[in-house]
Amino acid sequence: MSDEPAPPESLTPIRSVPVTRVAGEAVSRTMDVAAAEEPLDVRLHGRSFAVIMRTPGEDRALAAGFLLSERIIRSADDIGAIEHCRHPDQRRAHHVVDVYLCGGAAECVPGMLDKRRQVIANSSCGVCGRATIDELRADVEPLAVGPPIDVEVIRQLPDRLREHQSTFSKTGGLHGAAAFALDGTLLAAAEDVGRHNAVDKVIGSFLLDTTGPIDPTPAVLQVSGRVSFEIVQKAWLAGIPILSAISAPTSLAVDLANEAGITLLGFVRERSLNIYTHASRIAGVGV
Amino acid sequence: MSDEPAPPESLTPIRSVPVTRVAGEAVSRTMDVAAAEEPLDVRLHGRSFAVIMRTPGEDRALAAGFLLSERIIRSADDIGAIEHCRHPDQRRAHHVVDVYLCGGAAECVPGMLDKRRQVIANSSCGVCGRATIDELRADVEPLAVGPPIDVEVIRQLPDRLREHQSTFSKTGGLHGAAAFALDGTLLAAAEDVGRHNAVDKVIGSFLLDTTGPIDPTPAVLQVSGRVSFEIVQKAWLAGIPILSAISAPTSLAVDLANEAGITLLGFVRERSLNIYTHASRIAGVGV
Repeated sequence: MSDEPAPPESLTPIRSVPVTRVAGEAVSRTMDVAAAEEPLDVRLHGRSFAVIMRTPGEDRALAAGFLLSERIIRSADDIGAIEHCRHPDQRRAHHVVDVYLCGGAAECVPGMLDKRRQVIANSSCGVCGRATIDELRADVEPLAVGPPIDVEVIRQLPDRLREHQSTFSKTGGLHGAAAFALDGTLLAAAEDVGRHNAVDKVIGSFLLDTTGPIDPTPAVLQVSGRVSFEIVQKAWLAGIPILSAISAPTSLAVDLANEAGITLLGFVRERSLNIYTHASRIAGVGV
Repeated sequence: MSDEPAPPESLTPIRSVPVTRVAGEAVSRTMDVAAAEEPLDVRLHGRSFAVIMRTPGEDRALAAGFLLSERIIRSADDIGAIEHCRHPDQRRAHHVVDVYLCGGAAECVPGMLDKRRQVIANSSCGVCGRATIDELRADVEPLAVGPPIDVEVIRQLPDRLREHQSTFSKTGGLHGAAAFALDGTLLAAAEDVGRHNAVDKVIGSFLLDTTGPIDPTPAVLQVSGRVSFEIVQKAWLAGIPILSAISAPTSLAVDLANEAGITLLGFVRERSLNIYTHASRIAGVGV
């Protein structure tokens, strides 16, 4: 929006991330750009209403549209003011949007906030970014280094996943996820309209089949699309040390994979792939 | 899972949906398959803990993986029993998974449910399927018929959206959404790591620019990926009568678009497209 102050460089929609790029036999260490993912705190009358993982930019519009979708407002008439927090530290202020409602909508705010408070407090699903990373770091150990996987095994996984996406091939409408052992053996696969559900189905299948911690722990989780913060969190909680995606990771996915000791791979194709974190687990690429 | 009763036909991961297929000059009325999207009620000790919009299948694994991700359980040891509801009506029972925890995890259940109750009660974001459709139907009028849009305008929209996806072109990691007028004029565009956020940003931009109901109401919302229930809900609440997607809709998206009076288009390409609902708004295809 033109009436917002220009954001600091760190709040643009792109982040630079270091990457080990494997193209055929060539391996190079370079910089890549990842879509930025950062938490936005939407406050109603000064109190936190929701935390949304979003790409910085058009934050005021995002807050307004979100409140319409949540049916907190019915039209622009209900909005008294909507602006970024005026805290002098712009890095913090740009991740908070303050909304003040007017008329009948304003009268409902205290009741809504009381009901909503529990939602915020109990969101353990990864919606609160840095706070959640801190909480995970305190609570879950980074994954141990363990044995490496051969890059030739990794290259085959997207095709192997696709072979198990029977519903996708009929409808074009499903996300896929699969777990593999170090030697490339398929351990579990699932499809779902929800990207997170497909991962939960794969991880859950191990919980149903055993009576203790997941054992044997799958070595690789392969997903059909992009990787956000939440997908890395799921792999971490399940103890799966390698996460491979057909498409791009977000900036926060890279950050969390670094913290978790997870090897994060993106744009995995038969001839090329990107290694974003913990490259030492990938054998055969001379890194 | 092999120990589950075979689901009725209606619970398979695919639904048949009628579609008007436009390929070049040819128009045919046929049946298409859409990925099924249905609500799953995950109950803890007999009480509702979460409702997940999912594709039916591997429901027990989904519930187990979801509870691990939510950190309600730490390992399979915490699971006492996990099974579909035993209600004699299988159509209902297959959308409910009952989970009973054991040991320390079981002791925490009453407290978690009390905290969680508010989350369920206040989920107005589209997670509860049929209940939400019923609520919307009671509360929001189906959109009026209004003037038609020429199919030649529709064919150009995916390319027009892509021109505004500058961050996607750099990172491959962002969803895009844009709103257009009936004559194809671009009114607003946005990108985000979250598919729903991109739509909220576009819709929210109209709320910021006006002081009443969205006016002029955009005629078409174009999205870069697939269409789920929630995206249709957002278009409905914003009063946008035509929703066009580059990829596939889910079964519940088609159902809700029918209810809402929304024209839902999928797999929109320059030479071909599918019209799932309310085809009368599309001029120039002889339907």
